[in-house]
Amino acid sequence: MNNPVLLENLRCIPDFPKKGINFRDVTTLYKNPECMKIMVDEMYELYKDKGITKIVGIESRGFVMAAALATKLGAGVVLARKPGKLPATVIKESFSKEYGVDTVEMHIDSIDENDVVLIHDDLLATGGTAKATLKLVNHFHPKKVYMNFIIEITDEGLHGRDCLEKDVEVTTLMVI
Amino acid sequence: MNNPVLLENLRCIPDFPKKGINFRDVTTLYKNPECMKIMVDEMYELYKDKGITKIVGIESRGFVMAAALATKLGAGVVLARKPGKLPATVIKESFSKEYGVDTVEMHIDSIDENDVVLIHDDLLATGGTAKATLKLVNHFHPKKVYMNFIIEITDEGLHGRDCLEKDVEVTTLMVI
Repeated sequence: MNNPVLLENLRCIPDFPKKGINFRDVTTLYKNPECMKIMVDEMYELYKDKGITKIVGIESRGFVMAAALATKLGAGVVLARKPGKLPATVIKESFSKEYGVDTVEMHIDSIDENDVVLIHDDLLATGGTAKATLKLVNHFHPKKVYMNFIIEITDEGLHGRDCLEKDVEVTTLMVI
Repeated sequence: MNNPVLLENLRCIPDFPKKGINFRDVTTLYKNPECMKIMVDEMYELYKDKGITKIVGIESRGFVMAAALATKLGAGVVLARKPGKLPATVIKESFSKEYGVDTVEMHIDSIDENDVVLIHDDLLATGGTAKATLKLVNHFHPKKVYMNFIIEITDEGLHGRDCLEKDVEVTTLMVI
Protein backbone atom coordinates (compact mmCIF):
# COMPACT_ATOMS: atom_id res chain seq x y z
CA MET A 1 0.00 0.00 0.00
CA ASN A 2 1.14 3.54 -0.77
CA ASN A 3 3.99 2.62 -3.08
CA PRO A 4 6.81 5.11 -2.30
CA VAL A 5 7.45 5.92 -5.97
CA LEU A 6 3.80 6.86 -6.43
CA LEU A 7 3.78 8.93 -3.23
CA GLU A 8 6.93 10.76 -4.23
CA ASN A 9 5.60 11.58 -7.70
CA LEU A 10 2.07 12.62 -6.70
CA ARG A 11 1.63 16.40 -6.84
CA CYS A 12 -0.44 18.22 -4.23
CA ILE A 13 -1.97 21.56 -5.17
CA PRO A 14 -3.27 23.71 -2.30
CA ASP A 15 -6.60 25.51 -2.70
CA PHE A 16 -7.70 23.82 -5.96
CA PRO A 17 -10.41 23.90 -7.21
CA LYS A 18 -11.26 26.13 -4.24
CA LYS A 19 -9.75 27.40 -1.00
CA GLY A 20 -9.14 24.75 1.64
CA ILE A 21 -8.95 21.76 -0.73
CA ASN A 22 -5.55 20.14 -1.05
CA PHE A 23 -5.95 18.67 -4.54
CA ARG A 24 -4.11 15.46 -5.46
CA ASP A 25 -2.96 15.83 -9.05
CA VAL A 26 -2.53 12.42 -10.66
CA THR A 27 -1.27 13.90 -13.95
CA THR A 28 2.26 13.68 -12.51
CA LEU A 29 1.72 9.92 -12.14
CA TYR A 30 0.23 9.56 -15.63
CA LYS A 31 3.13 11.29 -17.35
CA ASN A 32 5.71 9.08 -15.62
CA PRO A 33 6.21 5.67 -17.31
CA GLU A 34 7.46 4.06 -14.09
CA CYS A 35 4.36 5.22 -12.19
CA MET A 36 2.07 4.07 -15.02
CA LYS A 37 3.66 0.61 -14.84
CA ILE A 38 3.38 0.42 -11.04
CA MET A 39 -0.30 1.43 -11.15
CA VAL A 40 -1.31 -0.92 -13.96
CA ASP A 41 0.63 -3.81 -12.40
CA GLU A 42 -0.99 -3.25 -8.98
CA MET A 43 -4.45 -3.06 -10.58
CA TYR A 44 -3.73 -6.15 -12.68
CA GLU A 45 -2.78 -8.13 -9.57
CA LEU A 46 -6.04 -7.08 -7.90
CA TYR A 47 -8.30 -7.98 -10.84
CA LYS A 48 -6.55 -10.55 -13.04
CA ASP A 49 -8.62 -13.46 -11.67
CA LYS A 50 -12.01 -11.73 -11.52
CA GLY A 51 -13.10 -12.29 -15.12
CA ILE A 52 -13.52 -8.55 -15.76
CA THR A 53 -15.10 -7.92 -19.19
CA LYS A 54 -15.77 -4.15 -19.01
CA ILE A 55 -13.99 -1.33 -17.20
CA VAL A 56 -16.04 1.82 -16.67
CA GLY A 57 -13.88 4.96 -16.56
CA ILE A 58 -15.42 7.99 -14.86
CA GLU A 59 -15.01 11.28 -16.78
CA SER A 60 -12.40 12.12 -17.49
CA ARG A 61 -9.21 11.36 -15.57
CA GLY A 62 -10.68 7.92 -14.86
CA PHE A 63 -10.47 7.08 -18.57
CA VAL A 64 -6.67 6.80 -18.35
CA MET A 65 -6.17 3.84 -16.01
CA ALA A 66 -9.46 2.26 -17.19
CA ALA A 67 -7.96 2.02 -20.67
CA ALA A 68 -4.50 1.04 -19.43
CA LEU A 69 -5.85 -1.86 -17.36
CA ALA A 70 -8.36 -2.90 -20.06
CA THR A 71 -5.45 -3.33 -22.46
CA LYS A 72 -3.68 -5.63 -20.02
CA LEU A 73 -6.83 -7.58 -19.03
CA GLY A 74 -8.33 -7.84 -22.54
CA ALA A 75 -11.49 -6.01 -21.43
CA GLY A 76 -13.59 -3.30 -23.09
CA VAL A 77 -13.72 0.32 -21.93
CA VAL A 78 -17.00 2.09 -21.13
CA LEU A 79 -17.23 5.84 -20.53
CA ALA A 80 -19.33 7.32 -17.70
CA ARG A 81 -19.74 10.94 -18.76
CA LYS A 82 -21.16 14.30 -17.84
CA PRO A 83 -24.51 15.26 -19.42
CA GLY A 84 -24.69 15.79 -23.18
CA LYS A 85 -21.32 14.26 -24.03
CA LEU A 86 -22.45 10.81 -25.19
CA PRO A 87 -24.02 10.83 -28.66
CA ALA A 88 -26.40 7.81 -28.52
CA THR A 89 -29.24 6.94 -26.13
CA VAL A 90 -28.18 7.15 -22.48
CA ILE A 91 -29.35 6.25 -19.02
CA LYS A 92 -28.54 8.81 -16.33
CA GLU A 93 -28.29 9.19 -12.59
CA SER A 94 -28.28 12.48 -10.70
CA PHE A 95 -26.73 13.13 -7.31
CA SER A 96 -26.41 16.01 -4.85
CA LYS A 97 -23.18 17.92 -4.49
CA GLU A 98 -22.20 20.54 -1.97
CA TYR A 99 -23.82 23.16 -4.19
CA GLY A 100 -26.50 21.83 -6.51
CA VAL A 101 -26.92 18.62 -8.48
CA ASP A 102 -24.71 16.73 -10.92
CA THR A 103 -25.50 13.93 -13.36
CA VAL A 104 -23.62 10.94 -14.80
CA GLU A 105 -24.63 9.30 -18.08
CA MET A 106 -23.80 6.01 -19.80
CA HIS A 107 -24.85 4.63 -23.18
CA ILE A 108 -27.84 2.34 -22.79
CA ASP A 109 -26.06 -0.48 -24.68
CA SER A 110 -22.72 -0.19 -22.90
CA ILE A 111 -23.05 -3.14 -20.48
CA ASP A 112 -25.10 -6.35 -20.48
CA GLU A 113 -26.04 -9.09 -18.06
CA ASN A 114 -23.04 -11.23 -18.98
CA ASP A 115 -20.51 -8.56 -18.02
CA VAL A 116 -18.27 -8.48 -14.97
CA VAL A 117 -17.63 -4.78 -14.43
CA LEU A 118 -14.86 -2.79 -12.77
CA ILE A 119 -15.67 0.89 -12.17
CA HIS A 120 -12.55 3.06 -11.94
CA ASP A 121 -11.78 6.69 -11.09
CA ASP A 122 -8.61 8.46 -10.04
CA LEU A 123 -9.81 9.94 -6.71
CA LEU A 124 -12.26 8.77 -4.06
CA ALA A 125 -13.22 11.79 -1.95
CA THR A 126 -16.91 12.21 -1.01
CA GLY A 127 -17.89 9.29 -3.25
CA GLY A 128 -20.85 11.11 -4.82
CA THR A 129 -19.92 10.54 -8.46
CA ALA A 130 -18.79 6.99 -7.73
CA LYS A 131 -22.05 6.09 -6.02
CA ALA A 132 -24.12 7.51 -8.89
CA THR A 133 -22.00 5.55 -11.38
CA LEU A 134 -22.45 2.38 -9.32
CA LYS A 135 -26.24 2.88 -9.39
CA LEU A 136 -26.10 3.34 -13.16
CA VAL A 137 -24.02 0.20 -13.65
CA ASN A 138 -26.41 -1.79 -11.45
CA HIS A 139 -29.29 -0.81 -13.80
CA PHE A 140 -27.69 -3.19 -16.35
CA HIS A 141 -27.72 -6.14 -13.90
CA PRO A 142 -24.19 -7.31 -14.66
CA LYS A 143 -22.95 -10.55 -13.09
CA LYS A 144 -20.69 -8.71 -10.65
CA VAL A 145 -19.36 -5.19 -10.03
CA TYR A 146 -16.07 -4.04 -8.47
CA MET A 147 -14.72 -0.54 -7.80
CA ASN A 148 -11.19 0.79 -7.80
CA PHE A 149 -9.55 4.17 -7.26
CA ILE A 150 -5.94 5.26 -7.44
CA ILE A 151 -6.21 7.45 -4.33
CA GLU A 152 -8.57 7.33 -1.38
CA ILE A 153 -8.60 10.66 0.44
CA THR A 154 -9.41 10.48 4.15
CA ASP A 155 -7.44 13.45 5.48
CA GLU A 156 -10.17 16.08 5.23
CA GLY A 157 -12.83 14.21 7.15
CA LEU A 158 -13.87 12.41 3.97
CA HIS A 159 -15.29 8.91 4.15
CA GLY A 160 -16.22 8.12 0.56
CA ARG A 161 -15.56 4.42 1.08
CA ASP A 162 -18.32 4.21 3.70
CA CYS A 163 -21.05 5.12 1.20
CA LEU A 164 -19.87 2.46 -1.31
CA GLU A 165 -18.56 -0.47 0.67
CA LYS A 166 -21.88 -1.95 1.75
CA ASP A 167 -22.80 -2.40 -1.94
CA VAL A 168 -19.53 -3.27 -3.66
CA GLU A 169 -15.92 -4.40 -3.07
CA VAL A 170 -13.70 -1.31 -3.15
CA THR A 171 -9.92 -1.25 -3.62
CA THR A 172 -7.56 1.72 -3.70
CA LEU A 173 -3.86 1.87 -4.55
CA MET A 174 -3.08 4.66 -2.07
CA VAL A 175 -4.76 6.01 1.08
CA ILE A 176 -3.96 9.59 2.06
CA MET B 1 -6.40 0.11 -43.60
CA ASN B 2 -10.06 0.21 -42.50
CA ASN B 3 -10.05 -3.08 -40.61
CA PRO B 4 -13.47 -4.68 -41.32
CA VAL B 5 -14.12 -5.50 -37.65
CA LEU B 6 -13.59 -1.85 -36.71
CA LEU B 7 -15.78 -0.64 -39.58
CA GLU B 8 -18.56 -3.03 -38.63
CA ASN B 9 -18.48 -1.98 -34.97
CA LEU B 10 -18.22 1.78 -35.49
CA ARG B 11 -21.53 3.51 -34.78
CA CYS B 12 -22.70 6.45 -36.90
CA ILE B 13 -25.12 8.94 -35.36
CA PRO B 14 -26.88 11.30 -37.77
CA ASP B 15 -27.26 14.97 -36.81
CA PHE B 16 -24.99 14.93 -33.73
CA PRO B 17 -23.93 17.28 -32.23
CA LYS B 18 -25.95 19.29 -34.77
CA LYS B 19 -27.99 18.79 -37.93
CA GLY B 20 -26.01 17.66 -40.96
CA ILE B 21 -23.13 16.07 -39.06
CA ASN B 22 -22.87 12.29 -39.28
CA PHE B 23 -21.03 11.66 -36.01
CA ARG B 24 -18.67 8.68 -35.72
CA ASP B 25 -19.10 7.25 -32.24
CA VAL B 26 -15.95 5.41 -31.17
CA THR B 27 -17.48 4.31 -27.86
CA THR B 28 -18.72 1.18 -29.63
CA LEU B 29 -15.08 0.37 -30.46
CA TYR B 30 -13.86 1.14 -26.93
CA LYS B 31 -16.39 -1.16 -25.28
CA ASN B 32 -15.48 -4.09 -27.53
CA PRO B 33 -12.35 -6.00 -26.38
CA GLU B 34 -11.64 -7.30 -29.89
CA CYS B 35 -11.73 -3.75 -31.32
CA MET B 36 -9.54 -2.44 -28.48
CA LYS B 37 -6.98 -5.13 -29.28
CA ILE B 38 -7.04 -4.40 -33.02
CA MET B 39 -6.58 -0.66 -32.43
CA VAL B 40 -3.79 -0.97 -29.89
CA ASP B 41 -1.98 -3.58 -32.01
CA GLU B 42 -2.22 -1.39 -35.15
CA MET B 43 -0.95 1.65 -33.23
CA TYR B 44 1.82 -0.41 -31.65
CA GLU B 45 3.00 -1.58 -35.08
CA LEU B 46 3.10 2.05 -36.27
CA TYR B 47 5.04 3.40 -33.28
CA LYS B 48 6.96 0.55 -31.64
CA ASP B 49 10.29 1.61 -33.20
CA LYS B 50 9.95 5.38 -32.78
CA GLY B 51 11.22 5.68 -29.21
CA ILE B 52 7.97 7.33 -28.02
CA THR B 53 8.32 8.53 -24.39
CA LYS B 54 5.06 10.52 -24.00
CA ILE B 55 1.62 10.15 -25.55
CA VAL B 56 -0.57 13.24 -25.45
CA GLY B 57 -4.28 12.39 -25.33
CA ILE B 58 -6.66 15.14 -26.44
CA GLU B 59 -9.67 15.66 -24.11
CA SER B 60 -11.33 13.47 -23.54
CA ARG B 61 -12.01 10.53 -25.85
CA GLY B 62 -8.35 10.74 -26.89
CA PHE B 63 -7.31 9.73 -23.37
CA VAL B 64 -8.49 6.15 -23.99
CA MET B 65 -6.17 4.96 -26.75
CA ALA B 66 -3.37 7.25 -25.50
CA ALA B 67 -3.38 5.29 -22.24
CA ALA B 68 -3.88 1.92 -23.93
CA LEU B 69 -0.90 2.42 -26.24
CA ALA B 70 1.25 3.99 -23.49
CA THR B 71 0.78 0.82 -21.44
CA LYS B 72 2.02 -1.30 -24.35
CA LEU B 73 4.91 1.04 -25.30
CA GLY B 74 6.02 1.84 -21.73
CA ALA B 75 5.43 5.57 -22.27
CA GLY B 76 3.86 8.26 -20.07
CA VAL B 77 0.44 9.82 -20.69
CA VAL B 78 -0.04 13.60 -20.92
CA LEU B 79 -3.47 15.23 -20.96
CA ALA B 80 -4.32 18.11 -23.35
CA ARG B 81 -7.41 19.65 -21.78
CA LYS B 82 -10.07 22.29 -22.08
CA PRO B 83 -9.56 25.51 -20.07
CA GLY B 84 -9.61 25.33 -16.27
CA LYS B 85 -9.38 21.55 -15.96
CA LEU B 86 -5.66 21.20 -15.18
CA PRO B 87 -4.76 22.19 -11.61
CA ALA B 88 -1.11 23.29 -11.96
CA THR B 89 0.53 25.95 -14.16
CA VAL B 90 -0.42 25.55 -17.84
CA ILE B 91 0.52 26.81 -21.26
CA LYS B 92 -2.39 27.34 -23.63
CA GLU B 93 -3.20 27.76 -27.29
CA SER B 94 -6.42 29.19 -28.70
CA PHE B 95 -7.92 28.48 -32.09
CA SER B 96 -10.92 29.55 -34.14
CA LYS B 97 -13.92 27.31 -34.51
CA GLU B 98 -16.96 27.68 -36.73
CA TYR B 99 -18.54 29.80 -34.01
CA GLY B 100 -16.09 31.49 -31.66
CA VAL B 101 -12.79 30.47 -30.15
CA ASP B 102 -11.65 27.40 -28.22
CA THR B 103 -8.53 26.79 -26.11
CA VAL B 104 -6.34 23.79 -25.30
CA GLU B 105 -4.14 23.65 -22.20
CA MET B 106 -1.24 21.47 -21.05
CA HIS B 107 0.74 21.48 -17.81
CA ILE B 108 3.94 23.47 -18.23
CA ASP B 109 6.06 20.56 -16.93
CA SER B 110 4.36 17.82 -18.94
CA ILE B 111 6.99 17.42 -21.72
CA ASP B 112 10.71 18.16 -21.97
CA GLU B 113 13.38 18.37 -24.66
CA ASN B 114 14.32 14.70 -24.33
CA ASP B 115 10.82 13.46 -25.13
CA VAL B 116 9.61 11.84 -28.34
CA VAL B 117 5.91 12.65 -28.43
CA LEU B 118 2.88 11.05 -30.03
CA ILE B 119 -0.27 13.20 -30.04
CA HIS B 120 -3.47 11.13 -30.26
CA ASP B 121 -7.17 11.83 -30.68
CA ASP B 122 -10.10 9.70 -31.76
CA LEU B 123 -11.32 11.79 -34.72
CA LEU B 124 -9.58 14.00 -37.27
CA ALA B 125 -12.22 16.28 -38.83
CA THR B 126 -11.31 19.96 -39.35
CA GLY B 127 -8.05 19.50 -37.45
CA GLY B 128 -8.47 22.67 -35.37
CA THR B 129 -7.95 21.10 -31.96
CA ALA B 130 -5.17 18.89 -33.28
CA LYS B 131 -3.29 21.82 -34.78
CA ALA B 132 -3.55 23.83 -31.55
CA THR B 133 -2.29 20.83 -29.58
CA LEU B 134 0.61 20.39 -32.00
CA LYS B 135 1.57 24.05 -31.50
CA LEU B 136 1.44 23.56 -27.73
CA VAL B 137 3.62 20.45 -27.89
CA ASN B 138 6.14 22.25 -30.10
CA HIS B 139 6.55 24.93 -27.40
CA PHE B 140 8.37 22.25 -25.36
CA HIS B 141 10.89 21.57 -28.20
CA PRO B 142 10.72 17.78 -27.92
CA LYS B 143 13.10 15.69 -30.04
CA LYS B 144 10.32 14.61 -32.40
CA VAL B 145 6.53 14.72 -32.66
CA TYR B 146 4.09 12.32 -34.34
CA MET B 147 0.29 12.43 -34.64
CA ASN B 148 -2.26 9.63 -34.79
CA PHE B 149 -6.04 9.41 -35.00
CA ILE B 150 -8.37 6.44 -35.02
CA ILE B 151 -10.58 7.90 -37.75
CA GLU B 152 -9.87 10.46 -40.46
CA ILE B 153 -13.10 11.93 -41.79
CA THR B 154 -13.01 13.13 -45.39
CA ASP B 155 -16.61 12.56 -46.47
CA GLU B 156 -17.98 15.99 -45.60
CA GLY B 157 -15.44 18.05 -47.50
CA LEU B 158 -13.09 17.90 -44.50
CA HIS B 159 -9.34 17.99 -45.05
CA GLY B 160 -7.95 18.07 -41.52
CA ARG B 161 -4.83 16.21 -42.62
CA ASP B 162 -3.84 19.07 -44.96
CA CYS B 163 -3.43 21.54 -42.09
CA LEU B 164 -1.17 19.16 -40.13
CA GLU B 165 0.86 17.18 -42.61
CA LYS B 166 3.36 19.86 -43.56
CA ASP B 167 4.47 20.02 -39.90
CA VAL B 168 4.21 16.45 -38.64
CA GLU B 169 3.85 12.81 -39.73
CA VAL B 170 0.17 11.85 -39.42
CA THR B 171 -1.24 8.31 -39.31
CA THR B 172 -4.86 7.20 -39.04
CA LEU B 173 -6.29 3.71 -38.54
CA MET B 174 -9.39 4.34 -40.68
CA VAL B 175 -10.31 6.81 -43.42
CA ILE B 176 -14.01 7.49 -43.96
